[in-house]
Amino acid sequence: MPPPTTIKVALAERSYPIVIGSELLGRAFDWSPYFGDSLGDSTCLVVTNTTVAPLWLDGLKTTLRDRRAASIALPDGEAHKSLATAATVIDKLADLHAGRDATVIALGGGVVGDIAGFAAACYMRGVGFIQVPTTLLAQVDSSVGGKTGVNHPQGKNLIGAFHQPKVVLIDTATLQTLPEREFCAGLAEVIKHAAIADIGFFGWLESNMAGLRKRDPGLLAHAIRRSCEIKASVVAADEREQGRRALLNFGHTFAHAIENSLGYGEWLHGEAVAAGMVMAARLSDIGGDAVERLSVLIDSAGLPIEPPRIGAGKLRAAMDLDKKAQAGKLRFVLLHELGRAFVTGDYDASRLAEVLTRAA
Amino acid sequence: MPPPTTIKVALAERSYPIVIGSELLGRAFDWSPYFGDSLGDSTCLVVTNTTVAPLWLDGLKTTLRDRRAASIALPDGEAHKSLATAATVIDKLADLHAGRDATVIALGGGVVGDIAGFAAACYMRGVGFIQVPTTLLAQVDSSVGGKTGVNHPQGKNLIGAFHQPKVVLIDTATLQTLPEREFCAGLAEVIKHAAIADIGFFGWLESNMAGLRKRDPGLLAHAIRRSCEIKASVVAADEREQGRRALLNFGHTFAHAIENSLGYGEWLHGEAVAAGMVMAARLSDIGGDAVERLSVLIDSAGLPIEPPRIGAGKLRAAMDLDKKAQAGKLRFVLLHELGRAFVTGDYDASRLAEVLTRAA
Repeated sequence: MPPPTTIKVALAERSYPIVIGSELLGRAFDWSPYFGDSLGDSTCLVVTNTTVAPLWLDGLKTTLRDRRAASIALPDGEAHKSLATAATVIDKLADLHAGRDATVIALGGGVVGDIAGFAAACYMRGVGFIQVPTTLLAQVDSSVGGKTGVNHPQGKNLIGAFHQPKVVLIDTATLQTLPEREFCAGLAEVIKHAAIADIGFFGWLESNMAGLRKRDPGLLAHAIRRSCEIKASVVAADEREQGRRALLNFGHTFAHAIENSLGYGEWLHGEAVAAGMVMAARLSDIGGDAVERLSVLIDSAGLPIEPPRIGAGKLRAAMDLDKKAQAGKLRFVLLHELGRAFVTGDYDASRLAEVLTRAA
Repeated sequence: MPPPTTIKVALAERSYPIVIGSELLGRAFDWSPYFGDSLGDSTCLVVTNTTVAPLWLDGLKTTLRDRRAASIALPDGEAHKSLATAATVIDKLADLHAGRDATVIALGGGVVGDIAGFAAACYMRGVGFIQVPTTLLAQVDSSVGGKTGVNHPQGKNLIGAFHQPKVVLIDTATLQTLPEREFCAGLAEVIKHAAIADIGFFGWLESNMAGLRKRDPGLLAHAIRRSCEIKASVVAADEREQGRRALLNFGHTFAHAIENSLGYGEWLHGEAVAAGMVMAARLSDIGGDAVERLSVLIDSAGLPIEPPRIGAGKLRAAMDLDKKAQAGKLRFVLLHELGRAFVTGDYDASRLAEVLTRAA
């Protein structure tokens, strides 16, 4: 078992480490630098869900040694990512008489992290927050960058806050219990990070996808680490998403259209992003075998490379809604080449029409 | 009518101006630097309450000229400063399909500003926010500094965010319609600012209290301006209340105990702060006529200089609760002398007992 590695997300006084290793849960861990107290007596609340709790809550509590921690298990699923659920976490903190030195630990996937992080951001205008992501998607994407939030009937993540964690602890062992479809969906974001920023990593993924699919701990640790490094460097350059951070939306304009058209939950987000990346690559004016390589890698990750057959008109309508929400401008992340992306509102409309007709 | 004056709250990229004048509402105002768009077509939502709307909503809309603005009138009163009310503001923004370039304008007192600011902080992780405070308390205190939030059954302002406005527009004309008791409560915070930071301003208040009580526009403009300057300089040095900002809590440890013991709403916050400042001055180990001068000034502002007769034991118990919430340390803001305050956890316990017995 290789020792854990640590990378740093550089955000001035909000900088924090991401610790990546195998079998970290179930053993003591030195959390002391990340709590708001010196005596170990501040309130600690673990927020998890009913699926993850039986698997990993005891293991997390072992890492805390003799520090007492309360816990709350939320119902599982995106349907519960609501202001009402976040309010139950806040109620729990209030019931515990948590002070400003309190810490909220999110143990679970992206939904748990988003809700717990938003509650931590709002309680007393911000208390400590720690992420222990247990899905691949959360480990390589949602636990890094400080975005927290909940859904509103009118839109995903419409209510939220930027709230950086004090530390992210990633135990690759948690991936062994992850359902196959969810695991593959997480790989979509790994591929995305390679495609926008690192052709070397892209090549490494081509060589090692079979081993990753078998969830080899060493390969997982490398893929997660490189993904987090890429996301961390983009976030460090643009914490509040004014510009460069939009690169992380590669494939997402199409993915949102797919998800909106199908209804959320029909395809997993990662699946929609997978097909969306192929569409974005097709829209990019690049020659060579880039589109082909991307498609092959995505396919080998067990992910779709074509949009669902719902009709170009429906996708187009969904994109127009998105456009309206963004003050009239539809923006895409396109590729100069594999490993080098850019954001643009200037795209070839007839090429877009072509890309969409694949969904007809 | 003197021309409006502008002071600046210096918070790096979150810096913003406070514009103070008389009869600004009802006339065109150049808001363009403070909206998130250039075309004047972004969503603008005015959040006000049912008391203020009939008085000032039309006047505010006149300042906006031909920019279209939606509005929502919340029920009046602290009892409605809840997450549920904030959610109605968020619902309204969602119904309007407001984008990231949207602006929320708070028109009203501290409650309206706190709710509207929190909704603006959370909607899409933060949209534009403008404060148009219409009470003296909001003009000299709550509209400056970026604290937003709502109450929880377990505590005041337990849910919130730091979210700085783009601009604060203060029209002293709005004070002409303010009930006497609320007006005087606002004077408590003006006196507080003088007592902690500016003996010259304290003397000016002693000389001009009679005119202020008559709501002379010129005197009001000066008092508001100097108050905002003092608060702005403290906030600029410590935006997130790690240290120096605590000076603004002069009188507040006692005030919270009074409010908690009486039940919130019995005394206005400013009234509790008034009596609390005299108590804090008594607890300060200062000679001369400082306590006397402070008491006389507070009395001349139509405010109480003694706590309600609820018994020292009850006040003490309320303070002990506060102490627990603050991780075991009761902290006071005390005076070196009038105009110079400091924060300390090191106070004379027998002197505190004496101060509290006045409430017996």
